[in-house]
Amino acid sequence: MCRLTLLISILGVAWAGYDPTWESLDTRPLPPWYDGAKIGIMICWGLYSVPSFGNEWFWNAWQSSHSSKYVKFMEENFKPNFTYQDFAAEFTAEFYDPAEWARLFNASGARYTVFVSKHHEGYTMWPSRYSWNWNSMDVGPKRDLFGDLTRTMRSTTPHIHVGVYHSLYEWYNPLYLEDKNNHYMTNDFVSRKTLPELYELVKDYQPEVIWSDGDWEAKDWYWNSTIFLAWLFNESPVKDTVVVNDRWGAGTACQHGSFYNCQDRYNPGVLQTHKWENAMTLDKQSWGYRREALATDYLSIHDLLTTLAQTISCGGNLLVNVGPTHDGRIPPIMEERLRQLGSWLDINGDAVYDSTPWVHQNDTVTPGVWYTLKGDLVYSIVLIWPKDNTLTLGSVQSTPDTTVTMLGYSSSNLQFKDAIGGLSVTFPPMSQVTSQWVWVLAMSGINPAQTSNYAGH
Amino acid sequence: MCRLTLLISILGVAWAGYDPTWESLDTRPLPPWYDGAKIGIMICWGLYSVPSFGNEWFWNAWQSSHSSKYVKFMEENFKPNFTYQDFAAEFTAEFYDPAEWARLFNASGARYTVFVSKHHEGYTMWPSRYSWNWNSMDVGPKRDLFGDLTRTMRSTTPHIHVGVYHSLYEWYNPLYLEDKNNHYMTNDFVSRKTLPELYELVKDYQPEVIWSDGDWEAKDWYWNSTIFLAWLFNESPVKDTVVVNDRWGAGTACQHGSFYNCQDRYNPGVLQTHKWENAMTLDKQSWGYRREALATDYLSIHDLLTTLAQTISCGGNLLVNVGPTHDGRIPPIMEERLRQLGSWLDINGDAVYDSTPWVHQNDTVTPGVWYTLKGDLVYSIVLIWPKDNTLTLGSVQSTPDTTVTMLGYSSSNLQFKDAIGGLSVTFPPMSQVTSQWVWVLAMSGINPAQTSNYAGH
Amino acid sequence: MCRLTLLISILGVAWAGYDPTWESLDTRPLPPWYDGAKIGIMICWGLYSVPSFGNEWFWNAWQSSHSSKYVKFMEENFKPNFTYQDFAAEFTAEFYDPAEWARLFNASGARYTVFVSKHHEGYTMWPSRYSWNWNSMDVGPKRDLFGDLTRTMRSTTPHIHVGVYHSLYEWYNPLYLEDKNNHYMTNDFVSRKTLPELYELVKDYQPEVIWSDGDWEAKDWYWNSTIFLAWLFNESPVKDTVVVNDRWGAGTACQHGSFYNCQDRYNPGVLQTHKWENAMTLDKQSWGYRREALATDYLSIHDLLTTLAQTISCGGNLLVNVGPTHDGRIPPIMEERLRQLGSWLDINGDAVYDSTPWVHQNDTVTPGVWYTLKGDLVYSIVLIWPKDNTLTLGSVQSTPDTTVTMLGYSSSNLQFKDAIGGLSVTFPPMSQVTSQWVWVLAMSGINPAQTSNYAGH
Amino acid sequence: MCRLTLLISILGVAWAGYDPTWESLDTRPLPPWYDGAKIGIMICWGLYSVPSFGNEWFWNAWQSSHSSKYVKFMEENFKPNFTYQDFAAEFTAEFYDPAEWARLFNASGARYTVFVSKHHEGYTMWPSRYSWNWNSMDVGPKRDLFGDLTRTMRSTTPHIHVGVYHSLYEWYNPLYLEDKNNHYMTNDFVSRKTLPELYELVKDYQPEVIWSDGDWEAKDWYWNSTIFLAWLFNESPVKDTVVVNDRWGAGTACQHGSFYNCQDRYNPGVLQTHKWENAMTLDKQSWGYRREALATDYLSIHDLLTTLAQTISCGGNLLVNVGPTHDGRIPPIMEERLRQLGSWLDINGDAVYDSTPWVHQNDTVTPGVWYTLKGDLVYSIVLIWPKDNTLTLGSVQSTPDTTVTMLGYSSSNLQFKDAIGGLSVTFPPMSQVTSQWVWVLAMSGINPAQTSNYAGH
Repeated sequence: MCRLTLLISILGVAWAGYDPTWESLDTRPLPPWYDGAKIGIMICWGLYSVPSFGNEWFWNAWQSSHSSKYVKFMEENFKPNFTYQDFAAEFTAEFYDPAEWARLFNASGARYTVFVSKHHEGYTMWPSRYSWNWNSMDVGPKRDLFGDLTRTMRSTTPHIHVGVYHSLYEWYNPLYLEDKNNHYMTNDFVSRKTLPELYELVKDYQPEVIWSDGDWEAKDWYWNSTIFLAWLFNESPVKDTVVVNDRWGAGTACQHGSFYNCQDRYNPGVLQTHKWENAMTLDKQSWGYRREALATDYLSIHDLLTTLAQTISCGGNLLVNVGPTHDGRIPPIMEERLRQLGSWLDINGDAVYDSTPWVHQNDTVTPGVWYTLKGDLVYSIVLIWPKDNTLTLGSVQSTPDTTVTMLGYSSSNLQFKDAIGGLSVTFPPMSQVTSQWVWVLAMSGINPAQTSNYAGH
Repeated sequence: MCRLTLLISILGVAWAGYDPTWESLDTRPLPPWYDGAKIGIMICWGLYSVPSFGNEWFWNAWQSSHSSKYVKFMEENFKPNFTYQDFAAEFTAEFYDPAEWARLFNASGARYTVFVSKHHEGYTMWPSRYSWNWNSMDVGPKRDLFGDLTRTMRSTTPHIHVGVYHSLYEWYNPLYLEDKNNHYMTNDFVSRKTLPELYELVKDYQPEVIWSDGDWEAKDWYWNSTIFLAWLFNESPVKDTVVVNDRWGAGTACQHGSFYNCQDRYNPGVLQTHKWENAMTLDKQSWGYRREALATDYLSIHDLLTTLAQTISCGGNLLVNVGPTHDGRIPPIMEERLRQLGSWLDINGDAVYDSTPWVHQNDTVTPGVWYTLKGDLVYSIVLIWPKDNTLTLGSVQSTPDTTVTMLGYSSSNLQFKDAIGGLSVTFPPMSQVTSQWVWVLAMSGINPAQTSNYAGH
Repeated sequence: MCRLTLLISILGVAWAGYDPTWESLDTRPLPPWYDGAKIGIMICWGLYSVPSFGNEWFWNAWQSSHSSKYVKFMEENFKPNFTYQDFAAEFTAEFYDPAEWARLFNASGARYTVFVSKHHEGYTMWPSRYSWNWNSMDVGPKRDLFGDLTRTMRSTTPHIHVGVYHSLYEWYNPLYLEDKNNHYMTNDFVSRKTLPELYELVKDYQPEVIWSDGDWEAKDWYWNSTIFLAWLFNESPVKDTVVVNDRWGAGTACQHGSFYNCQDRYNPGVLQTHKWENAMTLDKQSWGYRREALATDYLSIHDLLTTLAQTISCGGNLLVNVGPTHDGRIPPIMEERLRQLGSWLDINGDAVYDSTPWVHQNDTVTPGVWYTLKGDLVYSIVLIWPKDNTLTLGSVQSTPDTTVTMLGYSSSNLQFKDAIGGLSVTFPPMSQVTSQWVWVLAMSGINPAQTSNYAGH
Repeated sequence: MCRLTLLISILGVAWAGYDPTWESLDTRPLPPWYDGAKIGIMICWGLYSVPSFGNEWFWNAWQSSHSSKYVKFMEENFKPNFTYQDFAAEFTAEFYDPAEWARLFNASGARYTVFVSKHHEGYTMWPSRYSWNWNSMDVGPKRDLFGDLTRTMRSTTPHIHVGVYHSLYEWYNPLYLEDKNNHYMTNDFVSRKTLPELYELVKDYQPEVIWSDGDWEAKDWYWNSTIFLAWLFNESPVKDTVVVNDRWGAGTACQHGSFYNCQDRYNPGVLQTHKWENAMTLDKQSWGYRREALATDYLSIHDLLTTLAQTISCGGNLLVNVGPTHDGRIPPIMEERLRQLGSWLDINGDAVYDSTPWVHQNDTVTPGVWYTLKGDLVYSIVLIWPKDNTLTLGSVQSTPDTTVTMLGYSSSNLQFKDAIGGLSVTFPPMSQVTSQWVWVLAMSGINPAQTSNYAGH
């Protein structure tokens, strides 16, 4: 608080930093690493990983209904009066190996992570001074879960940027409930809990992504969001490289922030004017690990690559969520997807990292074809192997200089010809291609077709 | 906080309440119920009742040494990384029956209680809004332990005054540790935790004793004690009847407060000029229940009555501590002592309740004889049955109007005569006396002997 | 088994031991130590000490009714499907200190112990080879509970005889239930469980009391009791000193055995022709420890001494039961009773140990007076201090050689005179007597009065 | 036992069943369903699924070394004196859904199951009368785990045969250890535990596979194996359809039994003269679920299909092991492998079910090609897509009637020609083929080549 006073004094004299207004904050350029990174991994881990049932809103869902499956689950498996807080003692994390996680994240090809440091339950995954006896050092794992991973990644995979998810509100914090009951005319909760935590996180861990959530019940002025962001961008140890999302108060989503999430699993399918991110999850039904999930509840690698293609072609980043277990493991089915993603990127990463959207996002003629651009090359990401090995690209016009190759097929350039409907490219025999699931053409010397008649996907 | 501002405004105009200074606060008369009550019961119950080993300083003792019996106890009986906080889940209180406790307190003859609402561990025994997830409603018993007893006593034993013990400091609260580290130049802990809790306790439960503790590391100005007390005495719902002890900051003990505790088990043996209280405990070695205590570690009923006699003769109240178990019981050995005390008071209560010290406190000639006064009667509390049934009272002079009776022996007045050394009283046959352990003479028409040559006890 | 065959062969030839028939077994003289010992302590400790609610029949009571307090207790405090077996993990015994127990038993004045090695639940308190994973070494304390105490007592209090309680049947052992279902025409349970356990107990621990129980559903031929007893009396390592009670099959109680228990709390009030034992318990309502017991549920020391006097005067031994806690403690209220008993015996033990019944058991005139005899002395145990200090003994006639003293009052002989109704004895001043609660007169040179008109007690 | 006597009497008169000798038992023909089934699933589930660390030999490995990773695991995560038996309380199985398992097994294409009803730990997964308090009904899940699955499968997937794994020995059963100590000259353990259990299993659940294990420390005469098998084949309710493996005593493996396992993961690579089974597991390092397994520790679907091809070509069945979790789930990574196997069998099952080995087992020229035969068709299972889409089969000779098709490619017959080295078959474009990972050719009208020069696999 003293700091802010000082800041304002300084501003009053000569300083040229960002004002705590959206007008000013929105002028900050996006730190370039983020757009180039394209793929991040979110780690949704907390006390909900102990019941590991339903989803990460377990506590809220259980309390909200007297007849839900959550109530039944608790009645059948726990003693009466067992509370959500009692799960803390069973949050053991004995298999948590940050070095193993770092290796996996690296193998997946991701370039940043977003660790859920505190979900709406309020339990902090680091030893916060503002969450006594409700954090991972005091009860449960007895470890600085976030810090241990952060330090490990900084030393072993320094090219991966470490970020943090943080929920502004807490469902059942009595301080919050009292502010809410006061129609947010008081903000004891913000001044005693949320903001101190955010400052602590930034100063102690220097995250380069602040992925805010839980903002929607109150306006940004309640959360003091712009004041925090001005400090973050002007003064914090990560002021030059940090990016933030758009959840900083009711009405800010899709309006303000380094990048927009807009909503969960946001995937507009058309080019966006502002940098955005598609936050999605491998388990189709939950972000936190749920034990009842069947293999068929997880996205296949083809589903995942499809989403990746759609996202980056339209200017988004893909944030792939995994849900670790209460004992500190990333379930093998999730691990396998991440490794499959990584093996695909080993071959096809040129079409992804540091790419930008092209003139066309997806093909006008053939469904399941998405474009990216990097330097001289236009990349065509092909989700479905073409029938008869011949692919028609309606959005591409050849020139005399045109060449077409396939990533992971180095034997020769592909044959192509101008045909009705567009450029007709002959695929090599599938059995000679190293890429699995989805294929990428790299095209040089081509022009965009004049008319793009995309009609959704 | 708004309230204090308002208070100050009012004070600025016309109001005649107490100022937040010791000079002013010390002028408040002692509410008369307290001096008349003479006997209270302290209930020392908290998370330490779960390990129930050593004493209620378990957490601190365990953390303070790497080679203590506490470290050994934890290593031998718990898994590695088991923390004090983990005990909360085992604080079950399933046998807690406030109606049974109220019956017992009533049977003991006590006239007030002091319930440990929060010890230095910081865990609140009521659902405090300022101790989220570290209180008896959120983790452990899932009950308002203090409130349930308070409400029960108010309806079933309304003549017993309900009071509360509250620790100002908390060993390991990071907010406190930060203030301490700042040499108490900040007081976030006080403004966010201690004071809000105290206001909450008073407003929600109207305790008539505030028994403060844990004050000694900082001065009263850090704790804002005088401000709180001014509110308590001027405005609070218990302003007319509440009494407070003397632990409100380093240096206040034995100096300020409705009554003085000075130190634990304070028993000066001589008359005091200010109302005081002897807070002592049935288990000689601990206030909290410890499972390893043998029967021989508890005070005998004779020990207890001895202390009572010494205390009230010198102007003190006796606060008898019991330590309930983690499952909510008052151990039978403690129950038995309280019932024995009550059975003794049924016969001898006239010498206790509403009595005052006499001219002499204990007899000048015969050890183990203590005096009290009520109305016309001087009571002589005799700890040891006199040899040959003849008791010499060196502090008493007879008059022609003198009569001597024994409480619990109604057959006839006792015979007495003036003898060398004092008044010689003949006891009745012991087998015809109903009082056990300690006996009380009621004397009318007597004068104090001129010289009191007290020589300790 | 081979052993039995061998035994029978030997018997067939020349051997002069006891036959496995009651006719033969009943001819064995009572080893004299037992009658002289007079006071034993039973230790009722097992898995029921974990729920510690109701009594030691917890499992059976819970299973027998859908609406009992036991069902309610389980529903309110445990998760669904929690079974009795699950209590084993919580049977911790971390405070179990056999040396402390031995000191206490010694201080109580008891001369033998009967440790419940296996109650009807079937869980053995020693590491039986025949009760795998259902014994105190495999699950729960991970200790040989019986063995540790036995070894400690043998080395520190060798004058106290170590005995063992053992239940023949087990409520829910499927082998037993199958035999029962077969109308006891099979005895797999006996041959695989009960008998191997008994042989193991005797051979590994040499108990000098075998206190059998749980016999009543089947006849002795099902239990093979007489075969076991013949081995015990003929061949076992304790053949010379062991005593057994009378519960060896439906119909044996009060009929066969070294001493008779007949039924729990058996206290006939009149002289018995066969040695017997009054097995009773300090908690009036339970043998196992129950947490809900109030101090008032325990026998007072006066109750206990009353029972002792009645019992030994009629030829019985007194077996005083205590119920330790799941964590291995003897509750202080029980400890206090045992210590009070011991302090009384320190003064009055001459009237107890090695005494025999006298001609009269209790006085014909004054209620609450019981007699014992040792050598030249007749002891009169007086439960109520006589009014006006004068006791009339209707069952005693003086002679010229008569002297009367009081144990614990050594100043002088008591005065007495022949009076209407019997001998009139003048008690000393109570305040000069060291014995508390109950007093003993030692009389020499007296004769029994001619007519005893005892009419119950 | 009575039953056996009766059996022998009957045999003495007229009966023509199997004698309890291997000579006789080995004459029993293999019930035909087993050879046709080809694929089974083993379910390795027990108390080891609670620690879920290392492998299913956890208990033994932990006890066998003072410095192993198991000792470290226990020291770091459990309280001192925590025993293996204590895991039982945490064996919850709350997510166990036999209907879901049955659906999955069916989807995998398996035709029989082998459920581990009791591993070497001795804990029975059914409520055995001979394993009181050490079975899944008394402690842990409180369910008949084996029975619930068996009944569900019989009603929902009756075409899948239900079998059972059973360990003869138990590491730490004191009865076994005593027999062992007696050099197996006693067999109390067998007569009281192993055999009663086996009879109980067969009579109560009618399993059609008895997969015996834990036999190797003693000869078959100790286990009474041949007596049991004679009863099983002559009298039991499954006498007509049951099959048994070869682990019935030291020396019987690979010598006796309906089919031979010989050793774990037995995969000889050459044709066997006796029916055999390759028991293997998806996790390369463990049969029981271990939490620390990474995705890369599991067999890929290509690994699995490779093993399947090798196994059935040489006359074996494939038994694929999965390890469920302590809470009753089959981990998704295992589920995915089973579903992939099933999807492959949907296309290629004709080459598997009811097939027999062909003249040649694997191709003499091209590695990774394995043969089966059914009716007129020879199937060639091709593990590696041929370079240039052309496969040379050295073991096959065409005739004028020869046709070659690919399963899952219905468009047309494949082209082939005789070439140097064998039959040269032209594969269709890979992108038009529905089978993934491994492909099957169905050939009619072919002859085996004269010389088979198998050179390993």
